[in-house]
Amino acid sequence: MPQFKAPTRDLKFVLHDVLKVSDLYQTLPDFQEATPDIIDAVLDQAAKFCEDVLAPLNESGDKEGCTWTEQGVKTPAGFADAYAQYVEGGWPSLAAEVRYGGQGMPNVLGLCMSELTGTANWAWSMYPGLSHGAIKTLEEHGSDAQKDQYLTRLVSGEWTGTMCLTEPHCGTDLGLLRTKAVLNADGSYSLHGTKIFISAGEHDMAENIVHIVIARIEGAPAGTKGISLFVVPKILVNSDGSLADKNAVHCASIESKMGIKASATCVLNFDGAKGYLIGPENRGLNCMFTFMNAARIGTAVQGLCHAELAYQGAFAYARERLAMRSLTGPKNPEGPADPILVHPDVRRMLLTQRAIAEGSRAFIYFLAMQGDILRSGDAEAAKNADNLMALLTPIAKAFITELGFEAANHGVQVLGGHGYIREWGMEQIVRDARIAMLYEGTTGVQAMDLIGRKVLGSGGKLLTDFTAHIDQFCSQSHPESVADYVRQVAHYKDEWLGLSFAIGEKAMTDPDEAGAAAVDYLMYSGYVVLAYFWAQMASVAAAALADPSRSADYDFLNAKLMTAEFYFKRLLPRAQGHRLAIEGGALPLMQMPEALFAVA
Amino acid sequence: MPQFKAPTRDLKFVLHDVLKVSDLYQTLPDFQEATPDIIDAVLDQAAKFCEDVLAPLNESGDKEGCTWTEQGVKTPAGFADAYAQYVEGGWPSLAAEVRYGGQGMPNVLGLCMSELTGTANWAWSMYPGLSHGAIKTLEEHGSDAQKDQYLTRLVSGEWTGTMCLTEPHCGTDLGLLRTKAVLNADGSYSLHGTKIFISAGEHDMAENIVHIVIARIEGAPAGTKGISLFVVPKILVNSDGSLADKNAVHCASIESKMGIKASATCVLNFDGAKGYLIGPENRGLNCMFTFMNAARIGTAVQGLCHAELAYQGAFAYARERLAMRSLTGPKNPEGPADPILVHPDVRRMLLTQRAIAEGSRAFIYFLAMQGDILRSGDAEAAKNADNLMALLTPIAKAFITELGFEAANHGVQVLGGHGYIREWGMEQIVRDARIAMLYEGTTGVQAMDLIGRKVLGSGGKLLTDFTAHIDQFCSQSHPESVADYVRQVAHYKDEWLGLSFAIGEKAMTDPDEAGAAAVDYLMYSGYVVLAYFWAQMASVAAAALADPSRSADYDFLNAKLMTAEFYFKRLLPRAQGHRLAIEGGALPLMQMPEALFAVA
Repeated sequence: MPQFKAPTRDLKFVLHDVLKVSDLYQTLPDFQEATPDIIDAVLDQAAKFCEDVLAPLNESGDKEGCTWTEQGVKTPAGFADAYAQYVEGGWPSLAAEVRYGGQGMPNVLGLCMSELTGTANWAWSMYPGLSHGAIKTLEEHGSDAQKDQYLTRLVSGEWTGTMCLTEPHCGTDLGLLRTKAVLNADGSYSLHGTKIFISAGEHDMAENIVHIVIARIEGAPAGTKGISLFVVPKILVNSDGSLADKNAVHCASIESKMGIKASATCVLNFDGAKGYLIGPENRGLNCMFTFMNAARIGTAVQGLCHAELAYQGAFAYARERLAMRSLTGPKNPEGPADPILVHPDVRRMLLTQRAIAEGSRAFIYFLAMQGDILRSGDAEAAKNADNLMALLTPIAKAFITELGFEAANHGVQVLGGHGYIREWGMEQIVRDARIAMLYEGTTGVQAMDLIGRKVLGSGGKLLTDFTAHIDQFCSQSHPESVADYVRQVAHYKDEWLGLSFAIGEKAMTDPDEAGAAAVDYLMYSGYVVLAYFWAQMASVAAAALADPSRSADYDFLNAKLMTAEFYFKRLLPRAQGHRLAIEGGALPLMQMPEALFAVA
Repeated sequence: MPQFKAPTRDLKFVLHDVLKVSDLYQTLPDFQEATPDIIDAVLDQAAKFCEDVLAPLNESGDKEGCTWTEQGVKTPAGFADAYAQYVEGGWPSLAAEVRYGGQGMPNVLGLCMSELTGTANWAWSMYPGLSHGAIKTLEEHGSDAQKDQYLTRLVSGEWTGTMCLTEPHCGTDLGLLRTKAVLNADGSYSLHGTKIFISAGEHDMAENIVHIVIARIEGAPAGTKGISLFVVPKILVNSDGSLADKNAVHCASIESKMGIKASATCVLNFDGAKGYLIGPENRGLNCMFTFMNAARIGTAVQGLCHAELAYQGAFAYARERLAMRSLTGPKNPEGPADPILVHPDVRRMLLTQRAIAEGSRAFIYFLAMQGDILRSGDAEAAKNADNLMALLTPIAKAFITELGFEAANHGVQVLGGHGYIREWGMEQIVRDARIAMLYEGTTGVQAMDLIGRKVLGSGGKLLTDFTAHIDQFCSQSHPESVADYVRQVAHYKDEWLGLSFAIGEKAMTDPDEAGAAAVDYLMYSGYVVLAYFWAQMASVAAAALADPSRSADYDFLNAKLMTAEFYFKRLLPRAQGHRLAIEGGALPLMQMPEALFAVA
């Protein structure tokens, strides 16, 4: 298993040098405490916890997995104890509202913690991770009584939360859901139905679990307009917050999965379980949107995490393993062969991982920062931030998880046959990373959200709002060494707009043209967005290299510039393959009748 | 687990319509019995065995895996019995030489059986698969006495074989190997050393295992020029072929792997094991080349197998699973939603799998046919076939396994969250497929073989020999409906030559330019080669569609043409992304010093 070292140096570069988050936080009344010093201190503490407590449980957690019994689900050895330390350290409350016991730190900092815990041990990080969704939902849509009853304990981490959406016959198409809610005399509801794929649905880490459940109230309209949202605790909670009887929620089984084996994925049966309506009747799906955006950004982080971890493992191997000689003559003449790091293709894989991890990091934290701006008093700034998030979230979720999976596979590939053997730890990263393209909306679902709802659905406005940011960046002055990157970003920005317009035009006569373009369009967009962030990082790094007071950083800054060069020269060109595939149109996908698919 | 149906219809199309193998076999004295009727009868029998006997053991084999004990390795329930039926049916001897009990059928037909067994159950197929390597090596390089002693039992399947190359510190770089051979007074050698990653190195399917081992004779030169080849039976064999004592070969453990769990991957200790030299001293690596080419084609088949199996599983799901409505209006208005097959992106994934499977099938059987031509009496034809194999084998091995892995992942993706759950069987395909890009030379190793040894090493001759075939195809007359494909193939052929020349020119001043281009160049080449085979298939299909006597085939032929259209419009454009990445050059890969890789 690769030895995890928290990449705090790069996190600090993104937060302070690229995004200058503290400048923003000085203008936001909620976050004035988030000074650079505080941020750095939190990162250093987080790094220590993740390296020392979580990382050592990553491989053993995969090996042991979770165990189901009639009495409940047992998590792997050490998991519950690590969770207790996490609660003890006050980590669950880092970015939660002060009113319910939170520390009120910015969203960005909460996400930093998610990145570090996730890289150290993704499966473990899902238990606290799911609580964030429940907290956000209650913060935004819960009644005051519900907040009092549930939020403090969720924020402290004493209880954890879940999001119960999927049913056996429906995941993406929630309009088909069947779980039924029947109104009781006391104003509560009795829920009946089965939910599947419920992460952290049952475990031994916390004394209670707060399920946020979507269901259909008896008599509600069919489809998505008849969906309501409920809070359904595993153990019922008295109005004073103390625990009452067990509720009629039962974990019937846990799934045997490809990866994230230490994360319990539960089948939950609601057999007349008591639930309490959150928000208005039949508006459950709208209430979920808040949560779903956050969850999608949280899943984008997984791509970043696995790219980072796979890089660390692959580099450690590549500098030690000896095989063949460099094509330009021995680099380790005293040894029997050269370290494989000398070989161009090994470097290609490592730099691909690195360009993915570092580029995604800047992209994701920019997105998370928009979440903080939402809470500024300025309505226009908030609207702008909301629009940016609407456009960029599906790109971040799908593009970064696709590239994170690629990076995980490069990790295996650098190790050759050893990469396929469990004890080396690299194949686990591939298995763990694979789910990120599936849950919280598959890549295909994100792609339809992007092209259909966001780009075409806004008449292009969300896109041009964002490209205005790119225009502004390109019109600024930049160090000469990054001029070519800035030029490329400007060029791609124009091409992106043209491509979007062309798809929109074709889709007016045939909506399948949008669907046929969707995933290639999302991937194309992802490469352009990442180019924009790489150009920003390169510009900042090049400027800092001219500053003698930054001399201690020169190695770091040079590495950043070299990775940028790699991105523009070797990865960005992939966008052209996607563009040309889009231009191939819908006909080659749509013309085959179902019957002919069966012929072989 | 997807229900496997042998794609015999498509195999017959490739063999009879595209490659017209029987026309060739009529001209080859060894293979005159391989008439279309015989070939079809063999395929139908093979299909039955693979569907009925092997496919049902694929999921259970993964679940159970192999078990190591001091006494040996136990394969999963049913595996040994299936192997007994395979031997009973005479399958091991299908394409082996008549002289040692083989049925003397062409290489192509042997590979058909490999495809069908491999798609039904890849892990199982590795046990007989490894025997082929041992058989080929002994056929080509063994002494008459060795052939008499080992070949008949290997050909009958009573015994199985292995290839023992890798050691803990070396895989690709065999010059580093340490296993030592000490000459005994009786002319035999005593072997000392440890071999790892030995597939089928120990099991309970056959009474003896014939290991082909590379080792260094005491006093031999260092590096690859001091490597010799040995036959080392698990149980010693008397000169009359009867079994004697157990040899000093010991399976120390088996690996816990990401996939192909039912295939025993063994650590073998040779503790003074008796071995017998094959071929001349210190020429072991040359003797291995015969085997390694065959093994690489055999591994290319794995990409095809997993693309096919993943397609079958994904299509079965996509036609049943209901979610959302078609963008162009309900296609299943009576149901609550449409089958997901209506969605363009689901079709994109299915057609990608299909284009990979069917295109690779034509490519691989063309390559296997060259192996049969080698045995024709015509020296020029044999030389031409040998050159084609030299160029195309690394492309087939790396490109098809990379695309097979992609196809396997589409299989998971079509199923959404269910794809990640073991019981659906799709994630197993991903795990099983992942090793194909690693063993028998990684993608990077194949890519260096292609650009360095084959293309540049031959001064471009191997490439232009092949493009002359493409020229000939393009200059023939073709149905109007495929004119655009032929035009594209001709265009890409020119671009390929230009790209190869440009890399060669840059590599003259900096050899790292070849290494930096290698994998993108191999992938580019793969897309061009597949385009050539897709154009051939489309041309044949379009011609047959004009033939009323083929009317029973019209559905099949139309599906073929539609898949060709998909390939040219939606997959071939990826080649441009690779071309542009190559043009990014070596500098972005090579400039970062090792120390800077460690900075983060």
